[in-house]
Amino acid sequence: MSSRQAVPLPKAYRLLNHGPTVLVSSAHGGRRNVMAAAWNMALDFDPPKVAVVIDKSTLTRELVEASGEFVLNVPSRLQAALTLAVGTKSGREADKFSIVGVGGTPAAIVGAPLIEGCLAWLECRVIPEPHIQQAYDLFLGQVVAAWADPAAFSDGRWHFPDQQQRSIHYLSGGTFFATGDSFEVRQP
Amino acid sequence: MSSRQAVPLPKAYRLLNHGPTVLVSSAHGGRRNVMAAAWNMALDFDPPKVAVVIDKSTLTRELVEASGEFVLNVPSRLQAALTLAVGTKSGREADKFSIVGVGGTPAAIVGAPLIEGCLAWLECRVIPEPHIQQAYDLFLGQVVAAWADPAAFSDGRWHFPDQQQRSIHYLSGGTFFATGDSFEVRQP
Repeated sequence: MSSRQAVPLPKAYRLLNHGPTVLVSSAHGGRRNVMAAAWNMALDFDPPKVAVVIDKSTLTRELVEASGEFVLNVPSRLQAALTLAVGTKSGREADKFSIVGVGGTPAAIVGAPLIEGCLAWLECRVIPEPHIQQAYDLFLGQVVAAWADPAAFSDGRWHFPDQQQRSIHYLSGGTFFATGDSFEVRQP
Repeated sequence: MSSRQAVPLPKAYRLLNHGPTVLVSSAHGGRRNVMAAAWNMALDFDPPKVAVVIDKSTLTRELVEASGEFVLNVPSRLQAALTLAVGTKSGREADKFSIVGVGGTPAAIVGAPLIEGCLAWLECRVIPEPHIQQAYDLFLGQVVAAWADPAAFSDGRWHFPDQQQRSIHYLSGGTFFATGDSFEVRQP
């Protein structure tokens, strides 16, 4: 397990604010799964909320609806091939944890596992909104615990240590962008 | 106006897939406004849909609810200070177009303007979901037209020409990340 440190809940939105692609992990009744989701965003500051799209065809959907919980894991560039794989293969066919060598570690509050080697983790409880879940595959969650690898995020700031240990942004096919240079601006 | 080329609607999600911060432009009854939104995401492929958070306190909220339309504009790094400014100042106090020198150009289908100098534009019609608008400030839109500066996006691909003409990802304070290197992976 990579090192992890609690992120104060009012700062949890900063783990997603720059729009990284995440891994959604889930578990229910002895089954577990992990999928990739570029379509995620923060939804509120405090208590922190998130939104994520989870397609009806996925095993993740079934496990999230049954458990009412999920974890958003922020993978690093080192995990890009793994992210592509778990975004392509279905958990209905086989255990994706064993297929792609994704390690899971127990979370603090929810039953879904934390994916090892990621940069940050948001443990979430589903805010039930059956209409938008059904009509748009759109799930809202309240963040009940948040964690980050202090080598990449601490004191409310991302500070990626190198070119590999940084978050990633999926485009399409096998193409991603790495999170690039940080810069500061002042109002004009 | 920067150059712009139509993006086929089934490829419009790629304009947002990597999680850039956007400018939300709106207009109604002779008033217009622009604000920044890090909290946006694609929601569907075809017909393309998007989700964006628009706080109750904003003039944008009033104009979007009244018109049922908005544009998501993808700004470049050259527009980062402007993005910070329109994310901080309120359109209730003064016309942000004149304050920050943001130029607007008529859109093809909706009444909200396209912000000049951006890299891409998604013209959207609100999909009315009053409950989630009220409870979460969450707006869903169907993309009815999409455009990109062909210097940065063409044939369904981003290909940023330099370090300045690339999309940006807001963190907090005055800090942004630029969209970084593109890379390809294969499944493990």
